[in-house]
Amino acid sequence: MADQDAHTGEGRHATEILAIRWEEPPEGPVLVLLDQTRLPAEEVELVCTDAPALVEAIRTLAVRGAPLLGIAGAYGVALAAVRGFDVDEAAGALQAARPTGANLSVGVRRAQAAHRAALAESGDPQRAAAAALAAARAMHREDAEASARLAGHGLALLEELLPGGGHRILTHCNTGSLVSGGEGTAFAVALAVHRQGRLRRLWVDETRPLLQGARLTAYEAARCDMAYSLLTDSAAGSLFAAGEVDAVLIGADRIAADGSVANKVGSYSLAVLARYHHVPFIVVAPVTTVDPDTPDGASIEIEQRPGHEVTEITAPRAPAGTAGGGGVAVAPLGTQAYNPAFDVTPSELVTAIVTDAGVVSPVTGTALAELISGSGGQPMAE
Amino acid sequence: MADQDAHTGEGRHATEILAIRWEEPPEGPVLVLLDQTRLPAEEVELVCTDAPALVEAIRTLAVRGAPLLGIAGAYGVALAAVRGFDVDEAAGALQAARPTGANLSVGVRRAQAAHRAALAESGDPQRAAAAALAAARAMHREDAEASARLAGHGLALLEELLPGGGHRILTHCNTGSLVSGGEGTAFAVALAVHRQGRLRRLWVDETRPLLQGARLTAYEAARCDMAYSLLTDSAAGSLFAAGEVDAVLIGADRIAADGSVANKVGSYSLAVLARYHHVPFIVVAPVTTVDPDTPDGASIEIEQRPGHEVTEITAPRAPAGTAGGGGVAVAPLGTQAYNPAFDVTPSELVTAIVTDAGVVSPVTGTALAELISGSGGQPMAE
Repeated sequence: MADQDAHTGEGRHATEILAIRWEEPPEGPVLVLLDQTRLPAEEVELVCTDAPALVEAIRTLAVRGAPLLGIAGAYGVALAAVRGFDVDEAAGALQAARPTGANLSVGVRRAQAAHRAALAESGDPQRAAAAALAAARAMHREDAEASARLAGHGLALLEELLPGGGHRILTHCNTGSLVSGGEGTAFAVALAVHRQGRLRRLWVDETRPLLQGARLTAYEAARCDMAYSLLTDSAAGSLFAAGEVDAVLIGADRIAADGSVANKVGSYSLAVLARYHHVPFIVVAPVTTVDPDTPDGASIEIEQRPGHEVTEITAPRAPAGTAGGGGVAVAPLGTQAYNPAFDVTPSELVTAIVTDAGVVSPVTGTALAELISGSGGQPMAE
Repeated sequence: MADQDAHTGEGRHATEILAIRWEEPPEGPVLVLLDQTRLPAEEVELVCTDAPALVEAIRTLAVRGAPLLGIAGAYGVALAAVRGFDVDEAAGALQAARPTGANLSVGVRRAQAAHRAALAESGDPQRAAAAALAAARAMHREDAEASARLAGHGLALLEELLPGGGHRILTHCNTGSLVSGGEGTAFAVALAVHRQGRLRRLWVDETRPLLQGARLTAYEAARCDMAYSLLTDSAAGSLFAAGEVDAVLIGADRIAADGSVANKVGSYSLAVLARYHHVPFIVVAPVTTVDPDTPDGASIEIEQRPGHEVTEITAPRAPAGTAGGGGVAVAPLGTQAYNPAFDVTPSELVTAIVTDAGVVSPVTGTALAELISGSGGQPMAE
């Protein structure tokens, strides 16, 4: 029941958004996801009974966001194990579902390692499955704890950088409860600022093409009674020019050993704007997002997503990811789209990386390596 | 029939896109617009029989784009005059339809001045109406000529700045035949490069919230057989970072006396990105876009557009501008949007301003003033 604690512990406030949960009905264990492609119009749950269903949910972004993908990946391995499917096959498919993020792979491998170790020790598939599930639950709980620590570190950093208070924070994509076992990453920091009564405004980039800002961050901000405004991604420039942004807070999907940050496409433009306007650009992510095996930004594989995400407009109620997109064409037939899911911001444009293990600023490979070793070693260690 | 020449003259090539035309059917003169809110799904014409209908078409962006708004404004005054409505009232309403652009106002005042002068001279309302129409037709023809000159100047500038050729040009919003009596502004330059066989790629920003890039620039580029790719506005950053952009070409809605450029929101972010990556940022506009009465960027009134353009997704076939937006909500109910139509790029970020009267680079108030005086005085002069 450890994962239940993650949702009801004292770290949680009014907004109870359960992005993921493990259930054990009589028909057998299932992984229940809040289908994020249907938000904010509808709160629909998606029940996965096997790993392929979860792979599909990850691909269509029904479940998404760096830390949550790690948790989902671990639960996916546990689901395969508990239901008696081939665990290594499931793990491979889950890891390949989205290539850019570090956490998915970390989560999958953690549950897989726990499964393998228990199987080697006991020779009992049921015990091995229980070990995989325990690993997933631990990961879920740890992420909630990491989220609370992140928020504390981020709050302290903002107090130091912006002693005047009255923060106007710009954020991109979605980084709250919907991506986390807890209250998220960058959003958790903004929420902590809000709870202190110091948030003047949360500027929410809509985040094209899938509008995670408009659909999900606005949903989280509204549920938390935060003062927020939605804007098109390209309107951010005029906010900077008008001096309306005190800090940029974003999450990360993968942080290379040299401090390069892969995050939702559009993050890099904000980093350049922030630098030009002398505004702090702060990356908030669990330390597990730092991948020591990826030496630099150039080594990060950037997922190219289907062109129809750009060439068509899909109303949020339409099932996403169906053939051809299922949306209404906005561009002429045959239009080719350049649609990277992420971009890479080099460390020199990042003011600070805030993790659950502490803050790195200035961002250097050495400082990151020290942070990781101080946090108990490699991100995939149990 | 002067305006007909503008469409069929030797400057025109395969793509015949008639964004606006004056017709005189038996029921009385009308202004026929290609309804740009329906493109690229449908080519629907909108027939305006009076100025209020044109005001509505301007507000809903059925007709749009800096130079075309000038032409439309002039025809609108002529329409009021020819049909016996109050010309000054029509002129006032037309000028107020959209506040940011310089050209709309210039066009309206030009036809109004012609009408007033002819009325004072002859005392004959019919002659005055004919004078207003002649002014509108002259403006239409001159814009086509200006467009051809702009393209020549822009091509020469690019050859100078990028002697290697093989241009990859990034553009924002829509600046081709759909906004012009000719082939447009920034798009006309890209088209000239294409005709020389030197365009490696036209990168087309989709241009949220109304997707003029996806809907209109892609439509123009497809009709001209140009190699183009569509991208979300915030993906431009990663193109710059990858060295995939050789020059940025955009239009302008108003250029202040100090060289500050108001253009579609998102232009400023591109200017900052271009500067950071040492890529030329080139503004292409008829000299009439320079407004000597607006001293600087801060004096430019920025139109704030309805929030539903951001909080809702409207499929292109749905009638735009209907109450509430008529789209499907993507953001939670009650979400407030920051939705400026334009932003302002200061002259220090602009590599060059290309006009029909010549090129200004570096961009200074003095150089602009010289250009205007060299081109025959104030932009509103007949």
